Amino acid sequence: MQKLKERIAREGKVLPGNIVKVDGFLNHLVDTRLMDDIAEEFAKYFDTKRITRVLTAEASGIALATVCAQHYGVPMLFAKKAKSDNIESGLYQSEVFSYTYKKKVTLLVSQEWLGPEDKVLIIDDFMANGYAMQGLVDIVNAAGAELVGIGVAVEKGFQGGGDKFRAMENVPYHALAVIEKADENGITFREDD
Amino acid sequence: MQKLKERIAREGKVLPGNIVKVDGFLNHLVDTRLMDDIAEEFAKYFDTKRITRVLTAEASGIALATVCAQHYGVPMLFAKKAKSDNIESGLYQSEVFSYTYKKKVTLLVSQEWLGPEDKVLIIDDFMANGYAMQGLVDIVNAAGAELVGIGVAVEKGFQGGGDKFRAMENVPYHALAVIEKADENGITFREDD
Repeated sequence: MQKLKERIAREGKVLPGNIVKVDGFLNHLVDTRLMDDIAEEFAKYFDTKRITRVLTAEASGIALATVCAQHYGVPMLFAKKAKSDNIESGLYQSEVFSYTYKKKVTLLVSQEWLGPEDKVLIIDDFMANGYAMQGLVDIVNAAGAELVGIGVAVEKGFQGGGDKFRAMENVPYHALAVIEKADENGITFREDD
Repeated sequence: MQKLKERIAREGKVLPGNIVKVDGFLNHLVDTRLMDDIAEEFAKYFDTKRITRVLTAEASGIALATVCAQHYGVPMLFAKKAKSDNIESGLYQSEVFSYTYKKKVTLLVSQEWLGPEDKVLIIDDFMANGYAMQGLVDIVNAAGAELVGIGVAVEKGFQGGGDKFRAMENVPYHALAVIEKADENGITFREDD
C-alpha cells in the first residue's frame, strides 16, 4: 500500500536493534483517516462480506481492528493479555512470548464471544516475529471458528514472522507494508506480492 | 443515552462485588455501530470542532476513542500502561491504581504527541473510581494542553468516581449511562443530568 509505505518512510524512526517506531500515526498517536484507508485496502484482499468478527490483540491492534470492523459491519473482538496465573474458566487461551513486554503473556478470549459459527478476519497493526499472531490463530482454531484471512498493516519481513502465515493453505495472508531492512541508512520495503 | 442504557439493562451482567460486565458490546466484543452512536451522542455535549486530540487509556478505551476521533476528524492518542520501573525519558507519566490489574500502573504518553497547542477531549468506555481518568487529566495538565471535556460511556455512579470531575470548573464532564445500583435485583440508572 503505497500511502502507508510513504508514511513509514517519512515518519518512521529506526532505533538501535532494528526497531522501527511508527508511533506517530499507527500505535500511540493514531491517524484515524489512515486507518480508514487501510480498512478499505484490506477489503481488496479478503472476503469481508463473509466475516462475522474482526479479531485482534490488545492493545495497539485495537484501533485499526475497530475501524476495519466498522467498515465491514461486524463486531470487533480483542484478545486480552494477562499474566499466566489466575485465569478464569470459560476462556480460550494461548500463551505467547511478548516482544513488547519481554515475557510470556497469555492471550484470552471469552468462549461466549467466539464459536464454531464464526468466520474470523484477524487484523493487527504490526508484526515482527508473529508470536502474537500465532496465538490469535490458535484461539480461532480452539473455538472451531473459520479463519477467513489474516491482515497486517506493517510487517517486519526480516524477522520472518510472516513466512509461516504465507505458507498456510486456504487462508489468505496479506501485509500492506513489508519492511525488508531497517538500519541507520533508513527503511527499505519488500516489493509487493 | 437511552439506547446505551437499554443495552446495558438487557445484556449487562452483575457479578458478585457489584461488578458490572458489559463485555458483549463495549469492552471485549465491541459493537462498532453502537460506538458510532456514542460518538455522535458525545458531540452534543462537547465542542468537538475545537479539539485536536481524543485521548484515552489502553486497552478497552481505545475502540470507542478511535471511533470518536474518526467522527471528529482528529487523531486518537492512547496512554500506555507500564509497570513503574524501566520508564524511558520524554514521557508524561502518571501513576494510578488499576482496578483491573489490582496494582499500581503508570500511564505514559510521549511528549512528542501532546503539547501546549493541543485541545484534548478525554474519552473512556467505563469509569468506576476514576483513578485512570485522573491520570489522564494529570497528563493533559503536564503537557500544558487545554482540556476541552471528559466523556465516559458507562459510569458506576455508586463508586463516586465521577463526582470530582463533575465538580471541575470550566471542563464539561458527561457520562452517557450512570449506574446507580447494581446487585442481584438488576441494574438501576441515575436520571440524566
